[in-house]
Amino acid sequence: MPSTIGDRLKVTVFGQSHSEAIGCVVEGLPAGIVVDRRSMAALMARRAPGQGPWATQRREVDEVRIVSGLDHEGATCGAPLAMLIENTNTRSQDYADIARMPRPGHADWVARLRWDGFHDVAGGGHFSGRLTAPLCAAGAVCEQMLASRGVRVGAHLCEVAGIADERFFALGDPDEEREGLMAQLDALADGRAFPVIDEAAGRRMQDAIEEARRDQDSVGGIVECVVAGLPAGIGSPMFDGIENLVARACFGIPAVKGIEFGRGFEAARMRGSAHNDPYDVRDGSVCVTKNDAGGILGGITDGAPLLFRLAVKPTSSIAMPQRSVDLEAMEPATLKVRGRHDPCIAPRAVPVAEAVAAIAALDAWLSFPPRYVADGALD
Amino acid sequence: MPSTIGDRLKVTVFGQSHSEAIGCVVEGLPAGIVVDRRSMAALMARRAPGQGPWATQRREVDEVRIVSGLDHEGATCGAPLAMLIENTNTRSQDYADIARMPRPGHADWVARLRWDGFHDVAGGGHFSGRLTAPLCAAGAVCEQMLASRGVRVGAHLCEVAGIADERFFALGDPDEEREGLMAQLDALADGRAFPVIDEAAGRRMQDAIEEARRDQDSVGGIVECVVAGLPAGIGSPMFDGIENLVARACFGIPAVKGIEFGRGFEAARMRGSAHNDPYDVRDGSVCVTKNDAGGILGGITDGAPLLFRLAVKPTSSIAMPQRSVDLEAMEPATLKVRGRHDPCIAPRAVPVAEAVAAIAALDAWLSFPPRYVADGALD
Amino acid sequence: MPSTIGDRLKVTVFGQSHSEAIGCVVEGLPAGIVVDRRSMAALMARRAPGQGPWATQRREVDEVRIVSGLDHEGATCGAPLAMLIENTNTRSQDYADIARMPRPGHADWVARLRWDGFHDVAGGGHFSGRLTAPLCAAGAVCEQMLASRGVRVGAHLCEVAGIADERFFALGDPDEEREGLMAQLDALADGRAFPVIDEAAGRRMQDAIEEARRDQDSVGGIVECVVAGLPAGIGSPMFDGIENLVARACFGIPAVKGIEFGRGFEAARMRGSAHNDPYDVRDGSVCVTKNDAGGILGGITDGAPLLFRLAVKPTSSIAMPQRSVDLEAMEPATLKVRGRHDPCIAPRAVPVAEAVAAIAALDAWLSFPPRYVADGALD
Amino acid sequence: MPSTIGDRLKVTVFGQSHSEAIGCVVEGLPAGIVVDRRSMAALMARRAPGQGPWATQRREVDEVRIVSGLDHEGATCGAPLAMLIENTNTRSQDYADIARMPRPGHADWVARLRWDGFHDVAGGGHFSGRLTAPLCAAGAVCEQMLASRGVRVGAHLCEVAGIADERFFALGDPDEEREGLMAQLDALADGRAFPVIDEAAGRRMQDAIEEARRDQDSVGGIVECVVAGLPAGIGSPMFDGIENLVARACFGIPAVKGIEFGRGFEAARMRGSAHNDPYDVRDGSVCVTKNDAGGILGGITDGAPLLFRLAVKPTSSIAMPQRSVDLEAMEPATLKVRGRHDPCIAPRAVPVAEAVAAIAALDAWLSFPPRYVADGALD
Repeated sequence: MPSTIGDRLKVTVFGQSHSEAIGCVVEGLPAGIVVDRRSMAALMARRAPGQGPWATQRREVDEVRIVSGLDHEGATCGAPLAMLIENTNTRSQDYADIARMPRPGHADWVARLRWDGFHDVAGGGHFSGRLTAPLCAAGAVCEQMLASRGVRVGAHLCEVAGIADERFFALGDPDEEREGLMAQLDALADGRAFPVIDEAAGRRMQDAIEEARRDQDSVGGIVECVVAGLPAGIGSPMFDGIENLVARACFGIPAVKGIEFGRGFEAARMRGSAHNDPYDVRDGSVCVTKNDAGGILGGITDGAPLLFRLAVKPTSSIAMPQRSVDLEAMEPATLKVRGRHDPCIAPRAVPVAEAVAAIAALDAWLSFPPRYVADGALD
Repeated sequence: MPSTIGDRLKVTVFGQSHSEAIGCVVEGLPAGIVVDRRSMAALMARRAPGQGPWATQRREVDEVRIVSGLDHEGATCGAPLAMLIENTNTRSQDYADIARMPRPGHADWVARLRWDGFHDVAGGGHFSGRLTAPLCAAGAVCEQMLASRGVRVGAHLCEVAGIADERFFALGDPDEEREGLMAQLDALADGRAFPVIDEAAGRRMQDAIEEARRDQDSVGGIVECVVAGLPAGIGSPMFDGIENLVARACFGIPAVKGIEFGRGFEAARMRGSAHNDPYDVRDGSVCVTKNDAGGILGGITDGAPLLFRLAVKPTSSIAMPQRSVDLEAMEPATLKVRGRHDPCIAPRAVPVAEAVAAIAALDAWLSFPPRYVADGALD
Repeated sequence: MPSTIGDRLKVTVFGQSHSEAIGCVVEGLPAGIVVDRRSMAALMARRAPGQGPWATQRREVDEVRIVSGLDHEGATCGAPLAMLIENTNTRSQDYADIARMPRPGHADWVARLRWDGFHDVAGGGHFSGRLTAPLCAAGAVCEQMLASRGVRVGAHLCEVAGIADERFFALGDPDEEREGLMAQLDALADGRAFPVIDEAAGRRMQDAIEEARRDQDSVGGIVECVVAGLPAGIGSPMFDGIENLVARACFGIPAVKGIEFGRGFEAARMRGSAHNDPYDVRDGSVCVTKNDAGGILGGITDGAPLLFRLAVKPTSSIAMPQRSVDLEAMEPATLKVRGRHDPCIAPRAVPVAEAVAAIAALDAWLSFPPRYVADGALD
Repeated sequence: MPSTIGDRLKVTVFGQSHSEAIGCVVEGLPAGIVVDRRSMAALMARRAPGQGPWATQRREVDEVRIVSGLDHEGATCGAPLAMLIENTNTRSQDYADIARMPRPGHADWVARLRWDGFHDVAGGGHFSGRLTAPLCAAGAVCEQMLASRGVRVGAHLCEVAGIADERFFALGDPDEEREGLMAQLDALADGRAFPVIDEAAGRRMQDAIEEARRDQDSVGGIVECVVAGLPAGIGSPMFDGIENLVARACFGIPAVKGIEFGRGFEAARMRGSAHNDPYDVRDGSVCVTKNDAGGILGGITDGAPLLFRLAVKPTSSIAMPQRSVDLEAMEPATLKVRGRHDPCIAPRAVPVAEAVAAIAALDAWLSFPPRYVADGALD
């Protein structure tokens, strides 16, 4: 199971749900930047379980120990940054049945095939959503490096169970809407527990999640993410464009089943005259005057906010009985999944989407830098 | 501009719209398989321009010359397969204005930034849709190798301008629907020029495309693709899952702005009890009894057909005047794009989606093989 | 500073001489094999400092903590294996001058250029020989996996300060010499502190090292390494041959300045009729009847022992005064290197060479397996 | 058979000895540089066969056709550069026996194992030394790009059959010896057919080669290569240092069995006080005052010439009868290799070593650039 993403900036994730620890190694970070542990802890906390009735009750502090990659002043030094999170709260007995009776919607059965039964079953092993914790740690560092260059990353729950939040102000006139987008990002960063812009919609979403939980069921959702402030000219055509890199990274978030950039699937129903983003000259620079492309042309940033949405499927682990098979008897069987699970995983996927977007965006910047920004600036 | 995709199976694409030739190198192909040039030519022909009123009138034969990688009997020999397609029909003068006035929705301006003006402007250079021709050549070889193992790849125009084709029979009960899916694939392979299952819907789509063309405009569409017959157990969690690899590859097709697997974005509105695909035992083997997951669990194939859809934006090059900028004068300007362009690129994206799916699926099989199929079988 | 090697089997090394901890992540290990911590500890101990008068007196236990990648029974489970070694004995004050006055033969000055002064100076940072400890941990796991397939890895000090040990019996008739080679490997594994076959030669080497130490100087040496028992057919031509992979890995060992396979540089003075290894048929199988090629033909194993030698330069850190520059005053200066250093690093390079050879050989086996061994066998 | 080398700059080689054509794709070249076809042709000619009695009499023009990667003015444009060389002179019948009776010292037998008999036997297939022609084409472009930045690449036959040429002036005082080195490189570039500095030594080498040829035998040699003018600060520690990258690339040249940097194996017999290169300040800059390290410290260039030597084994294909096996009868047999072969391959390895050094050096520069040179400068 290779678990590495990135080109100039590489993130390797290790750990299983119930291993001693989980963590990651980040290679290729620019040197000389003091890691802000407070903002890392804040991102980690937003992902952590146990924050509300919609989330699993497994509680873990997820304290990040940086064991290498910093100098004695806490600044990055060019060497690989290794981060460790101890696993403190593991209840392996909950998973005793899984080896025998695979959970629908999970990788239990296919992992058993692939590794001939030698994979780690407990808690989903390396397939566990718990591995998004080190992703968030890596993403927090990348987000900080982007922030120091004027780039802001944000995400919200765009939709849950069919209930919609406001969309990001990122598809219209850049000048007019930039202010609106910043206000939205400020609102999301104000410490609210449930990551929506429109809090009334958020309450309805929470009701729907609670209803699913009472039904021993789960619901899905859509996460919208924006990276604002990237200079135009980052990326490459063919297979190393921004969309390629972001998409490959985002499908590393468990439960993601779709991704779209800018108008995305809606673009399929538009005409070119409406979808094309016209150019204009403002303050002596070229810019696009709207952003249906999601900030990307031919795989390369165009200066407008990078915008994408992720489809998150309903949590696979549900409490109600499900049809499975008994792999020893090789006959149909009814499974009741035990353990602690989120009735909707989408809220906790929001900070993960931010983290992954930050990783992919910083990697793209370092790997395929815009010519008119001195390449060395970030290196 | 790196232009390589894949792990064990690597495809490197070269060429520009108006270079002497275009082509690709395929590393890692299994040895000992005679390349079927007829089926390659058929796939190339489906992608080629000039097939109907909906397509550009640039006509090129796109004959593929295999210059290396075969032994004297025409079988793959383990060495890199290099394929060449001469560029015979280039009209560079059509693009004289582009260097000065970038086309909205194209990479002209961002490429100019990225390569400081040294990129090849003519015909879009390495960003051109023409580069999908070598992708089809590579895909044809991969599709043939999959076919020899009982795997069938197919795609169709799922939607154009809001007009829908039938969906593939791949989301319900595998046993009942496999027959239906095979019938659909047979229908698509019967030589029809316009790649839809429901030909009445296809005629309405063509009308909508023609209408857009008359309006000097363009329309988008959705391509649905299926890879049926992959064994369960191919893939990896995190960043090397089937979704990661297919998504990264598919965003290499120009104009693709979204991808979804199985139910995709629709899954965001489903409950877990409905979305989870239950297991059953049939003929002594485990299988899923429906396929909302699109054949993938935790990044690994589950034996059901791999199914995904691509959002294709409306063609950026439209004949009507558009707002752009004059990069020399640095002032707003009105652009009239000349040259030959498809009023809807989605029909020609259908064979390309098949090709890319075949490349990604064969690569995943070789890179992350299912344990219970002897690894060496394909090697 | 990317710090990853390997293809199917990837080892990523992290840590600095004086970071909190050092370690590595190993991706792609075959699943289902219980890690033998005793043999790992034995290899670690052979590399550890403080074993004799020829080695630095920095003493560290180098206990390896495996934090992930094992299941609850201690067997590999397919997930990345992450290993951690705490840094307990750091004396940063010894290195106060280095930032200002670079040590000749070290990377101090070039690292300062490359990372603009932001690299970690203490103890050599990520350039430190201490990073060979996690390499040994990774190598111990790989060596164990090779051993389970009948492959044996060994190394010895072939030469120190011009004093030669016996050569490995691996360049003559395989049948006659295999027994001799196994006896040599047994002798080296018998717990002797100084890794030579001929212990009398070893004593003279130690005298030469001690003499250099008394002179506040250092000496170099040659390490010879063998991997016996690899099946024929592993590897690839061009850039992924055994020699390419082993050489790239071995130059990751600090102080290595040369590598040669089989007869190596001596081959340059031989005739083809003498150098070519003839074939014969024994017990129904093809084999070579001598081994001047070092077990490799065209980048691929030929069934004879893989044999190579590494040139290890004399330790750069010597106590006697040296000509350097004061980087702040930008003027010549005399440097006296303080701290604890090995007067000859070659003895401690012996287990590292074994470790690196095991990593490279297992990676080659997994990445470019011989056809007639079922590929899946090791996966 | 993957056949790609490099990181930011990637070279993929394709072709077999007797395929229709051979060639390469170069990804990641800086844009905007007009390719000098004359200097490319000159390098190709030095590698080409048939130049003297010491070389094979197979004659091929080796004209390079650049099919993509240039704009209409012949300058690189960022897109992959694809180059093609037609195979015009193939005599497959010479190799009829090889499939049955493997040539000692060649990959015939191991390739047969590895690809289960499906590899291309004719002329050695993808293992053929003919594949060094596209390497030279790629290297010529890289050498030109280095030259435009003041870097000079050169190589010579350091030794043949024990007869030594002068060494390069690159191991002593940089100031004094730079002039001498430039004079040596000028001498080598003056059109002499046999690539030695000391032409008297060259005549004795040619006599030794001729003598071997008369004996139906072959001889080996040593190639010395220098890359002068690289700025200090290029490279990385661990596995991406200059030595790692150059070594991996050089073992891609057929017949190379060893590589050493600077003093190399001789360093193993030196003391640290002699081997360490002291620093000095000259013209306000830091520099080393001699160059026993071969221009590399900790994997990073130190501003002195990069210097390495390659051991080239005697040509494996010799005319005298050799002991082999009949793979069909599975019994010992006597082989007489037919065809046209060089009695010493080392002279033709000289331009290939230069080409490979240029590729590796440019890749290292682009991948791990020195901080104080604006990264963008070469991109």
